Amino acid sequence: MNLTTQNSTICALATAPGGALGIIRISGKQSLQIISQIFSKNLVDAEGYTVHYGNILDKTSNLIDEVLVNVFRAPHSYTGEDSAEISCHGSRYIINKVLELLILHGCRMAQPGEFTQRAYLNGKMDLSQAEAVADLIASTNQATHRMAISQLRGGVSTELAKLREQLLKLTSLLELELDFSDHEELEFADRKELLQLTNLIDNRITTLAHSFETGQALKQGIPVAIVGKTNVGKSTLLNTLLKDDRAIVSDVHGTTRDTIEETMDINGVTFRFIDTAGIRQTTDSIEQIGIERTLRKIDEARIVIWLIDELPTDSELNDITQRCKGKTLITAFNKSDIKDFSNCQLSIVNCQLLNISAKTGYGIEPLKQHIYEAANLQQLSSGDVIINNARHYDALTRAHSGIERVIEGLHQQLSGDLLSEDLRQVLNTLSEITGGQITPQETLNNIFSHFCVGK
Amino acid sequence: MNLTTQNSTICALATAPGGALGIIRISGKQSLQIISQIFSKNLVDAEGYTVHYGNILDKTSNLIDEVLVNVFRAPHSYTGEDSAEISCHGSRYIINKVLELLILHGCRMAQPGEFTQRAYLNGKMDLSQAEAVADLIASTNQATHRMAISQLRGGVSTELAKLREQLLKLTSLLELELDFSDHEELEFADRKELLQLTNLIDNRITTLAHSFETGQALKQGIPVAIVGKTNVGKSTLLNTLLKDDRAIVSDVHGTTRDTIEETMDINGVTFRFIDTAGIRQTTDSIEQIGIERTLRKIDEARIVIWLIDELPTDSELNDITQRCKGKTLITAFNKSDIKDFSNCQLSIVNCQLLNISAKTGYGIEPLKQHIYEAANLQQLSSGDVIINNARHYDALTRAHSGIERVIEGLHQQLSGDLLSEDLRQVLNTLSEITGGQITPQETLNNIFSHFCVGK
Repeated sequence: MNLTTQNSTICALATAPGGALGIIRISGKQSLQIISQIFSKNLVDAEGYTVHYGNILDKTSNLIDEVLVNVFRAPHSYTGEDSAEISCHGSRYIINKVLELLILHGCRMAQPGEFTQRAYLNGKMDLSQAEAVADLIASTNQATHRMAISQLRGGVSTELAKLREQLLKLTSLLELELDFSDHEELEFADRKELLQLTNLIDNRITTLAHSFETGQALKQGIPVAIVGKTNVGKSTLLNTLLKDDRAIVSDVHGTTRDTIEETMDINGVTFRFIDTAGIRQTTDSIEQIGIERTLRKIDEARIVIWLIDELPTDSELNDITQRCKGKTLITAFNKSDIKDFSNCQLSIVNCQLLNISAKTGYGIEPLKQHIYEAANLQQLSSGDVIINNARHYDALTRAHSGIERVIEGLHQQLSGDLLSEDLRQVLNTLSEITGGQITPQETLNNIFSHFCVGK
Repeated sequence: MNLTTQNSTICALATAPGGALGIIRISGKQSLQIISQIFSKNLVDAEGYTVHYGNILDKTSNLIDEVLVNVFRAPHSYTGEDSAEISCHGSRYIINKVLELLILHGCRMAQPGEFTQRAYLNGKMDLSQAEAVADLIASTNQATHRMAISQLRGGVSTELAKLREQLLKLTSLLELELDFSDHEELEFADRKELLQLTNLIDNRITTLAHSFETGQALKQGIPVAIVGKTNVGKSTLLNTLLKDDRAIVSDVHGTTRDTIEETMDINGVTFRFIDTAGIRQTTDSIEQIGIERTLRKIDEARIVIWLIDELPTDSELNDITQRCKGKTLITAFNKSDIKDFSNCQLSIVNCQLLNISAKTGYGIEPLKQHIYEAANLQQLSSGDVIINNARHYDALTRAHSGIERVIEGLHQQLSGDLLSEDLRQVLNTLSEITGGQITPQETLNNIFSHFCVGK
């Protein structure tokens, strides 16, 4: 797939097969000529944003389906090209037949993401926005949806535009310095300002790069480990949490959810529960291996729920706090329906304490709120840009290294032309994200191959 | 669901979840008012057959999605009511959110088939056409597609209209007879004509009712049994047949097929292969049971492929011909790549003989043509109406009994008013199929509950 193939007219099923309706999308210069050859009306001169009812007929005028055709005219279409959408009945036979007829008359099957790639190549959106389209389609909850919408609306692009502006200012200051390089005192003054500005840029890039951890966690589900001794009620707690969530979900959906795999949504954010074996002191070497594995799994978690049903020993307390450094630890006294923990105090710094009963459901709602708050997602509510794309993260990391080199160079009093070279590099690296410069075909193929066909 | 609830405005996802796009359908008087409350443009006065690009916003003006809205105006819509289709991104989160917003503003979720039921109630189609919509969506090959299209275009309805006309003619002749009942000679002449006309109607109803067997077979796959001794190559033959079919299918589809379950298409018709155990003479009583089961399975088949790799004994010949009475028997000499059957002759009446090699694929194409021809589907090519709906078959069977009563009555010289009563019954029974008279709500619910939601 490259620029020259953009002359072709492409088609694909844009909906999942199996529904009452199926939408077949066509885009390219010949869209309306080709459709007119299989449709009972001539749409060659049809206006954009109009709907046409008619029949799809095969070569021997057999009726294939009664359909609606939406017509879009360049440049006012998703791809920026002449395009159309055929809304037919969702029978796979009909869909294949219509696609077959379109191909027979000169269309070719679209590659995954090719419609969006054309939108990008025709200047309808930048690369980070194009990537947001795939994220939007894949979004399963409020958090991933909000990230995708923000990116689609240019959230990342705007952020990068600001950085670009600052980098250009930095470059022009360096050039000014070069012009006046005879005047020693001027150079010295500039360097201080340069350093300030560079640090500002560095901070912003670092913040963006760091947000990737949150972005990834939001996409894949924020990892939560429920740990505790055997029979303390870990499975019951998980079931109670999931049951609650599923009940809420099914109220709205009315459809079967995809494989649940022990994830649940709290306030529109997915949390992914990591299954752990019970931890107890043991001399059994096999069981010890299981426990070691559990402990390693705790390392993956951002949040650890420590479930206890009796006061832990100091040694146990010490173990868990050591293990949970850098994570948020929530300690829950379980079985509070039959045990009294009202006087229990634990000497753990910064640890949340809760009384719950996984069996009766007591305290589950507060626990969920604690889990949500432990995820520490202030970016979500503040509307700050969250990076959730590995390609963007990679570019930001490289840009960060570049900026660090500039800072080092400024400290080492390197000459302006050497620093300029690094700055240009940073600018290029950042523009990879939005695809502002010519993007290598291989990169485009990589990006769009992860799309679904028909988008 | 009944007529009074038709005042409500309904919504549903009309595509399968999981694609790049999802279509949400809305129908009812309030459609455009409701959409205007969640859409960035006011569509209350939008013209029919127009497309509108804009944003779906939630109560607090958060962007949910950028969408296209198709507007249809009563009576020029599928349901005959004001209606609209929202084309949004296929994310389940977005789809649920949009449905939630529509419901919040006064829509209710549609029942299965409710859009089509409204189309029927608003006189856009008759009942048999409405049923054809579900068949069309479910159609998987040329044969089922063609039956559904024919029924959707009024194939069944036209056929019934002709019958109705003949029945009315019969009724009026009977009334004429009543008016002139003093004149014996007139009555006598009429009765002969009446009998001729009634037999004509009877034949037509019988033909239609008989076509149900073919209709069912086409829907479910025409049953074919491959029988023969152990190790004669039955499984190899099945694999060769299926492999061939799958290869052809995947050329066009590019998508995974649904569970194949040993069916294959030949010339656009599905054949369903019945697995049978090898048949051989045995004294083992357990094996004998297996063979008995095989023999019973042969009874289900319309076509039997008898696979042999040596000349059968007269007793074997006799067994198979007895067993296959009323079916088409195809005898295939297998392993023709290593054996020579050129001089073999079998004394079976009306039996097709073929040399094949399941292993090398030799003779498979002619075998497939024999299987297709054995299915005896001249109705498909002639375009004759094929009944494929159990409800229609049931009505036709009852109508047939009614007509038989009339014929009997004519032979018994029953009086015209008694015969008229039976004829009225037949007319009513036939009109159940198209729903010409008021159809009980229970019947409607039965019919439309088998639809998918969103159609």
